[in-house]
Amino acid sequence: MRVTFLGTAGALPSIERAPSAVLLEREGDRLLFDCGEGTQRQMMRYRTGFSIDAICISHLHGDHILGIPGLLQTMDFNGRSAPLQVIAPPGGQPAIEELIGVGGFRPSFPLELSTAAAGRPAIEAEGYSVIPVRTDHRGGPSVGYLLRESSRLGRFDRAAAEALGVPPGPLFGQLHQGESVELEDGQVIHSEEVVGPSRSGRQVLYTGDSRPVGTVDEASGAVDLMIHDATFTEADAARAETTGHSTAAQAAMDAVANDARRLALVHLSSRYGGDSSGVLAEARAAAPDVTVLAPADGETVEIPYRADDHV
Amino acid sequence: MRVTFLGTAGALPSIERAPSAVLLEREGDRLLFDCGEGTQRQMMRYRTGFSIDAICISHLHGDHILGIPGLLQTMDFNGRSAPLQVIAPPGGQPAIEELIGVGGFRPSFPLELSTAAAGRPAIEAEGYSVIPVRTDHRGGPSVGYLLRESSRLGRFDRAAAEALGVPPGPLFGQLHQGESVELEDGQVIHSEEVVGPSRSGRQVLYTGDSRPVGTVDEASGAVDLMIHDATFTEADAARAETTGHSTAAQAAMDAVANDARRLALVHLSSRYGGDSSGVLAEARAAAPDVTVLAPADGETVEIPYRADDHV
Repeated sequence: MRVTFLGTAGALPSIERAPSAVLLEREGDRLLFDCGEGTQRQMMRYRTGFSIDAICISHLHGDHILGIPGLLQTMDFNGRSAPLQVIAPPGGQPAIEELIGVGGFRPSFPLELSTAAAGRPAIEAEGYSVIPVRTDHRGGPSVGYLLRESSRLGRFDRAAAEALGVPPGPLFGQLHQGESVELEDGQVIHSEEVVGPSRSGRQVLYTGDSRPVGTVDEASGAVDLMIHDATFTEADAARAETTGHSTAAQAAMDAVANDARRLALVHLSSRYGGDSSGVLAEARAAAPDVTVLAPADGETVEIPYRADDHV
Repeated sequence: MRVTFLGTAGALPSIERAPSAVLLEREGDRLLFDCGEGTQRQMMRYRTGFSIDAICISHLHGDHILGIPGLLQTMDFNGRSAPLQVIAPPGGQPAIEELIGVGGFRPSFPLELSTAAAGRPAIEAEGYSVIPVRTDHRGGPSVGYLLRESSRLGRFDRAAAEALGVPPGPLFGQLHQGESVELEDGQVIHSEEVVGPSRSGRQVLYTGDSRPVGTVDEASGAVDLMIHDATFTEADAARAETTGHSTAAQAAMDAVANDARRLALVHLSSRYGGDSSGVLAEARAAAPDVTVLAPADGETVEIPYRADDHV
């Protein structure tokens, strides 16, 4: 699983930073979180291709949605036939339909529009789900998105199985899936003798634009990567409050509250002139145990299974 | 007067070419012809600033309009208070209003929306007007735009005036404006004795997306710069016809028909991989007396008064 930051700017883009868009890829599935103006050209620039399965929209501000119609028109132009899911924030579906249809455009591939409801999975796929989570922005409804993988089977202890006399072959699979098996000599082996406890899947949490979100109930244990609004530093904390955004320190506190392994600071205000050293230093000071990044546009972050699973 | 090509791509942008947008600057007035997705970032990249007076839209296809809401939001963010004219193609005003208002956005500066009618000036300003002209695209109404400067006063022949005994000073100005003046010795000098014939202003013609336009009636004499759809080469002439575009050779014929001094080929199809040598060679062969350009994004063309005026 990996995440590519296609646009990391705040409301005002810059030469270096495009408006919000984050691409997540997992075993062939590709999800886009927000789609600011120019996302299609960012996809060209960073050679990600356009074949995404879903666009998950956090809220209706222009810097998060204005790239949608152009991207869909380019998909159409390229002959896409696969359906595309588009998940709108609560109440936002008519506006998204209007935006897509502007100028009379109708894609020739199927569009599956739906509305996010906090806590109810918006996508349920093989091995993972995407769950909208409550956020707190200004001027209209907003949601964040949690990608939560299903828990994985416990680790199979091949040496233990062989020591118990289980012959390599289909019995290994049955044991791994949780079944008990009977050997030729009549001995019964139970799954828990050779299989460790089930391991939790990975989790990625995208806040979109928001004030601090606190502990996210939908998350199940540690979050592997939290992608958080960090528009301002604490010096502009009052402005963060009035505009419905977070400071880097607040993003860091949210990372701690959700046991995040890594924190990516995005939606950086143009007032810092593209210099992310301030938000980075502030978040690192507030959450010294979290690996904090302020990705540039085009940067990719791999999300491995947790190291402690491999011990 | 000068023109900056902010976006020269066809329907599909590329890493090198953004969707359609052309900025024209004339003595402090700044007009934008079309505004494809990402135009605001092109303006940042090429350091043109955002202070434009009007956006003239040729037609409603996404690659010509999807940059409008983001640009207006950035203007608003930057505290713009000056009114902005937005000229929609015939019947297109509701769609443009819808696009600007998507997500509930309302600019805090005054928006002056109007609808283009071919042949009737859309902008009448000091020294020039902008006149929508008939074009022929596919799928909905379209217009091009002719910027036509007012004719200028004839050249004042200072040496001739002095030889006739006119003292330097206010009488020079009166003669230049077309008045006759009486000297102290009672001699009357007529304007035409010292002022040449009035000189025609410059003209820039932007076709937007179109089949060949033929002779444009609204143009008054030679066109200084024609900016023409040249999506395809003649090898794809059939495709140009079915999609409502022009080939480079057709653009060149239009340049000849309108006595264009220079021809800029834009809206180049991505099928040529960003290589403009084909369209350039074709247009040059078809119009050897016209200076033909295929501008890159960010390229600026100065439009001087015509050389023959200065003889």
